[in-house]
Amino acid sequence: MVVQWMHELGLAVSIDAIGNVIGIRAGTEDGPPVMAGSHIDTVATGGRYDGCLGVLAGLEVIASLNDARMVTRRPLAVAFFTNEEGSRFQPDMFGSLVFTGAYELDRALATVGIDGATVGGELSRIGYAGSATVGQPRVHAYVELHIEQGPVLEAEGFRIGAVEGVQGISWNEFTVTGQSNHAGTTPMRMRHDAGYAAAAIAVFARRLAWEIGGSQVATVGALTLSPNLINVVADRALLTVDLRNTESDRLKEAERRLFAFVGETAAAEGVAIARRSLARFEPVSFAPHLVARVEAIAREFELPVKRLPSGAGHDAQMLAAVCPACMIFVPSVGGISHNVKEYTDPADLAAGANVLLRLMLELAEG
Amino acid sequence: MVVQWMHELGLAVSIDAIGNVIGIRAGTEDGPPVMAGSHIDTVATGGRYDGCLGVLAGLEVIASLNDARMVTRRPLAVAFFTNEEGSRFQPDMFGSLVFTGAYELDRALATVGIDGATVGGELSRIGYAGSATVGQPRVHAYVELHIEQGPVLEAEGFRIGAVEGVQGISWNEFTVTGQSNHAGTTPMRMRHDAGYAAAAIAVFARRLAWEIGGSQVATVGALTLSPNLINVVADRALLTVDLRNTESDRLKEAERRLFAFVGETAAAEGVAIARRSLARFEPVSFAPHLVARVEAIAREFELPVKRLPSGAGHDAQMLAAVCPACMIFVPSVGGISHNVKEYTDPADLAAGANVLLRLMLELAEG
Repeated sequence: MVVQWMHELGLAVSIDAIGNVIGIRAGTEDGPPVMAGSHIDTVATGGRYDGCLGVLAGLEVIASLNDARMVTRRPLAVAFFTNEEGSRFQPDMFGSLVFTGAYELDRALATVGIDGATVGGELSRIGYAGSATVGQPRVHAYVELHIEQGPVLEAEGFRIGAVEGVQGISWNEFTVTGQSNHAGTTPMRMRHDAGYAAAAIAVFARRLAWEIGGSQVATVGALTLSPNLINVVADRALLTVDLRNTESDRLKEAERRLFAFVGETAAAEGVAIARRSLARFEPVSFAPHLVARVEAIAREFELPVKRLPSGAGHDAQMLAAVCPACMIFVPSVGGISHNVKEYTDPADLAAGANVLLRLMLELAEG
Repeated sequence: MVVQWMHELGLAVSIDAIGNVIGIRAGTEDGPPVMAGSHIDTVATGGRYDGCLGVLAGLEVIASLNDARMVTRRPLAVAFFTNEEGSRFQPDMFGSLVFTGAYELDRALATVGIDGATVGGELSRIGYAGSATVGQPRVHAYVELHIEQGPVLEAEGFRIGAVEGVQGISWNEFTVTGQSNHAGTTPMRMRHDAGYAAAAIAVFARRLAWEIGGSQVATVGALTLSPNLINVVADRALLTVDLRNTESDRLKEAERRLFAFVGETAAAEGVAIARRSLARFEPVSFAPHLVARVEAIAREFELPVKRLPSGAGHDAQMLAAVCPACMIFVPSVGGISHNVKEYTDPADLAAGANVLLRLMLELAEG
């Protein structure tokens, strides 16, 4: 349906070998286009805005220029990248990863999904194993409009987010092994309580986030005890710590302090704590001049605007490796996302699309 | 088998309506007997010492007096009480509860077990719905020899424990309701993290035990988060706190401070925390003159002895409501109990039985 709309808008549509779709509107000059983009895939119980907004707003930009019979100097492009969400195939975002050369095409095509199908097989089956050269065209600049997926803009009364970058992520799993004991007959001084050690780490993670401050967040979302009985000191605990920061050095500091605390806790409690890294991504900074332009355009439109980081991953962070890239956020009501209740006010959708339009025009003419 | 042994030792055996069995050896005078006792039921995967030791050591006392052709002034008795463990029927210890009048006979008989059978029906089926009057005979003094079921005596090099009392127990379950949020996009200041609140309570429970000191123990053995995912702030946590103290006022202080902290944490984190009391027993103190005699006799026998509380429940705490009662502990290797690995050195079993013999003789003659 989206490709049909691209054709109806007069775009030249190309599909590459990983199924990324790019529709190009010619400029008065040849050369790399200014690209709007995002994704049209979704999580299983997702809403209607996550991803689609950036693609459809890009098409609305094209439609508006068609209506006004305006032709830009540089070409314009609207793209949607394959498998941003990673719901069926891992890793997520491999469409933009392959596009930017950060992930091998053959490896992505061979990926087996949760239903046993391969990416390559499924792309062929649905007719999206395209012939366009992966990574083409080269991009002059990339702008992604997206819902915030968090509560900040709405809670603080802003309508536009000028996204400065994407947080780096450090995911670690800790397995605590202590000694199971009777909760009544074992004095406190003789305990090796895996549950206490896990709780102490969770409380420390919160303190760490406050002490480091800035964009630092720290979450213990998963924690299980064994045998998990009211009157038995736990001999085993499994917990995860999710650390994120927009600044590489701060993220490393958070990791260093967390790991040191884990070591001290293990020694003090007489438990063993094993660590396994589940994910590690460096932060990405968007092009400062583009972030500044998003902010300035929003002000010009009298839209309250806030600079903020993205806590979630987006295709824009991959594109940032090959061209100047930025993102525009609009508020998510209640911060709700990946949920059918996901909602953004139509006026905010339009506001975001207007900022996108203005920025693409500037970039296409400048 | 135990009843058969009682008969072989010449005891007059009576069985009451709840299946408690008492074997009496006549004294030179009539009147309330000096009673040794415990239980012969067990948990599903229990060891061979928990309960049986006190009953069999009582029979050994009788056998020794028979061998020595000694007759005491007061009668002696050896008893085993029904359902101390509560493995099949709840509540535990209802044999001694009914014996002392603290629980209604009819209610106990009507109890439905985990297999759907009733206590009354099963007692009739196995021939232990006896005709003796419940609560008879009245008891002059009660002495229970038992394994410690904890690590203290072994770890500190003692062979006899002079048990001062049984800890009071306060079991509470807390349900924390917060708000589920994205671990990346939700700033720390906007979180209502049920997992953090639960961890904070667990860490506080540890601090509380140290600050109150003495016999106070505090355990968070069960803690579950929902949805329990690495990158989602938990919206729900369920945790239990097990508080025990031998002193009633201290236990109440621990509860008061715990509940206050829970209230403060709920307010600070913006979560709701509901409390449900799962169990509440007041501490029991054993007769000071009997505790002192256990200690003195052990010293006389050159057995290293320590005064300590019992962290687990025992029939003796019920008997303490109707007569002077006390307990003698012997070490549990590694503190292991309710486990097939439960073990006590034969020399320690004999040492405990010798203290029991001496104390029963004193009480029967004094």
